[in-house]
Amino acid sequence: MDEPMDYASAGVDIDLEGSAVASLIGALSKSVRAPGSPGAPVDLPGGFGGLIEFGDNLLAMATDGVGSKLQIATSLKQWGGVGIDCMAMNVNDLLCVGAEPIAFVDYVAVPKPDPVIHAALGASLAEACRQARVTLAGGETASLPGIVTELDLSGTALGWLPKGEAITGEHLQAGDVLIGLPASGIHSNGYSLVRRIVEHAGLSYEDEAPFDPTHPHRELLRWTEGKATLGEVVLNPTRIYCDPVVDLLDAARGDASFSIENIHGICHITGGGLSNLLRLHDSLGWSIHTPLPVLPEFEWLQAAGKVETREMYRTFNMGTGMILAVAKEHATSILTWLEQRLPGTAVVGEVTDEGHRVSHAIEGVEFTHY
Amino acid sequence: MDEPMDYASAGVDIDLEGSAVASLIGALSKSVRAPGSPGAPVDLPGGFGGLIEFGDNLLAMATDGVGSKLQIATSLKQWGGVGIDCMAMNVNDLLCVGAEPIAFVDYVAVPKPDPVIHAALGASLAEACRQARVTLAGGETASLPGIVTELDLSGTALGWLPKGEAITGEHLQAGDVLIGLPASGIHSNGYSLVRRIVEHAGLSYEDEAPFDPTHPHRELLRWTEGKATLGEVVLNPTRIYCDPVVDLLDAARGDASFSIENIHGICHITGGGLSNLLRLHDSLGWSIHTPLPVLPEFEWLQAAGKVETREMYRTFNMGTGMILAVAKEHATSILTWLEQRLPGTAVVGEVTDEGHRVSHAIEGVEFTHY
Repeated sequence: MDEPMDYASAGVDIDLEGSAVASLIGALSKSVRAPGSPGAPVDLPGGFGGLIEFGDNLLAMATDGVGSKLQIATSLKQWGGVGIDCMAMNVNDLLCVGAEPIAFVDYVAVPKPDPVIHAALGASLAEACRQARVTLAGGETASLPGIVTELDLSGTALGWLPKGEAITGEHLQAGDVLIGLPASGIHSNGYSLVRRIVEHAGLSYEDEAPFDPTHPHRELLRWTEGKATLGEVVLNPTRIYCDPVVDLLDAARGDASFSIENIHGICHITGGGLSNLLRLHDSLGWSIHTPLPVLPEFEWLQAAGKVETREMYRTFNMGTGMILAVAKEHATSILTWLEQRLPGTAVVGEVTDEGHRVSHAIEGVEFTHY
Repeated sequence: MDEPMDYASAGVDIDLEGSAVASLIGALSKSVRAPGSPGAPVDLPGGFGGLIEFGDNLLAMATDGVGSKLQIATSLKQWGGVGIDCMAMNVNDLLCVGAEPIAFVDYVAVPKPDPVIHAALGASLAEACRQARVTLAGGETASLPGIVTELDLSGTALGWLPKGEAITGEHLQAGDVLIGLPASGIHSNGYSLVRRIVEHAGLSYEDEAPFDPTHPHRELLRWTEGKATLGEVVLNPTRIYCDPVVDLLDAARGDASFSIENIHGICHITGGGLSNLLRLHDSLGWSIHTPLPVLPEFEWLQAAGKVETREMYRTFNMGTGMILAVAKEHATSILTWLEQRLPGTAVVGEVTDEGHRVSHAIEGVEFTHY
């Protein structure tokens, strides 16, 4: 195979997924809960977290799974990070609406209960709860031998925020500064392509990584001695951004020199890569003129899979796991605040009025739809 | 095969599941959220729904899936009821702590997105939201061809109640009256055994039901004309008890002749059947002296599978989907209130102080552990 690889040829049809989800959403009628009552829906652009009313507050729910990253973890019998991935995918979505995550429930589907898997998941979820500062409020383990052939793990996070303080994107404007938060690795998206490339390269996940995985501001979760294996690099858990983002929101709602109104948008860079930015606003553009350093695993994946650059940025986070759009006049103080708590955080670009488009320092990396 | 069938021989090892779940829970540390802060855990016996603090209120989360009932739905390409099953399994658990369900998120895992499945799920979830009176606050569709071979569906429900008004079981006492709410069918538990028995009987789910499925106070969700098929009977959606239980709780907290303190316990009869009652209290007993009528599908399953009577009651709801334990002096008014809204509701037994034991009008149907 010498064709360049892409996400669709790795077995994922984003358009088909979109139309399937549209079928589901199209069948849903309006909520039966009247405006003002507990549970009444609150419409927000972007749709990272579902918001509902609750008295003087809003509650937000997010649900997501770890996806095919699990298959690598299961093949290596290393589930120590997947609870963190599961937590991260959910709580990072909640942060995007300005919510503080407070509780989490997990759903585990296995062909057969396995105390070894469950003990590892328990430890991983406990660490995830610590990092995200949430209560594990429940969970379900389903034995479904006719439906799943190996572990599936998903979860739901619950968050809250004061009414009127949601981050809605309505204050976004050209000139806003984009601040990027560094990723810890591939996070939890694009693994169909990762697996395809590793297979094509004829490597085992137990092999030493065929590149130097050293990268500033990230540590690998290790289970071997010596040089890091490819498995340790690709399974490195998704960064949970509650620290520093919840504290930033608290400070902004408190006595910091910036206020919550200065934080105009927050974007979790998941499947779709930088094109996720387009979800925040209907017409504004996004110029990533100074991207964060690309993690070495992405450089290797691109070379080994001959993946086109644009496809890389459409599939992976490429080193930036979350982007905040903030008011220009407060960007320096917000950046300083964040950078002290999460080194590697930096200005990566700005909001523009040059069309509903993401552009990038690398020519050709451009997206006009999510 | 002429051995009597049971749940374990159908491939479900309840003890193994218990030890796997214990491994997971054992690895969890205490919550990082301090008492009094949003999200701090609230310990309750029974564990139907996970409760957390939220100002003057409590929030409750429940997560569960439809399980192997889905395999029958998928084999028939009839997913119209499974969204209701998914909702019911979750919101009925929330009712047990006295919470009003307000929102729901679904998690769908498929080998490949399929607009037909998703449209059916969307319609089913919309009807489920209507019946449970909740907002669908989000959802996730995961394409996991390496993990699932066919549809898996689970979800998470969120509910709330005023602080200090949780149904904790602490007021339970000998003499309390047990009120049973009728089930609509097999609900969502015991399907490994159902499938085994139907296979053993050499029947197709598209065959006419080999018994008269008529039963008072339940209607079947039909997709064929003429006599009901076996598939229509076994897939009949789980009853959602929000109506009447949420209204009962509202009335009890409002101006009814009974109060919330008179409702001592609520039990969702799921996997484990009547043994679920033991989850409500550490030492009291439960005498089911006047059970609700058994649904005809259970009689047929027992005969076709030569299942022992006790095993039937340990696996299935047998016609009673939820049981309320209420103060004796208010039992008549609560029963009258419920029976007007859900015909078929009746007194089924009483709480006793004769040991931590469920006993039943049928000799031998007795449980001493969940």
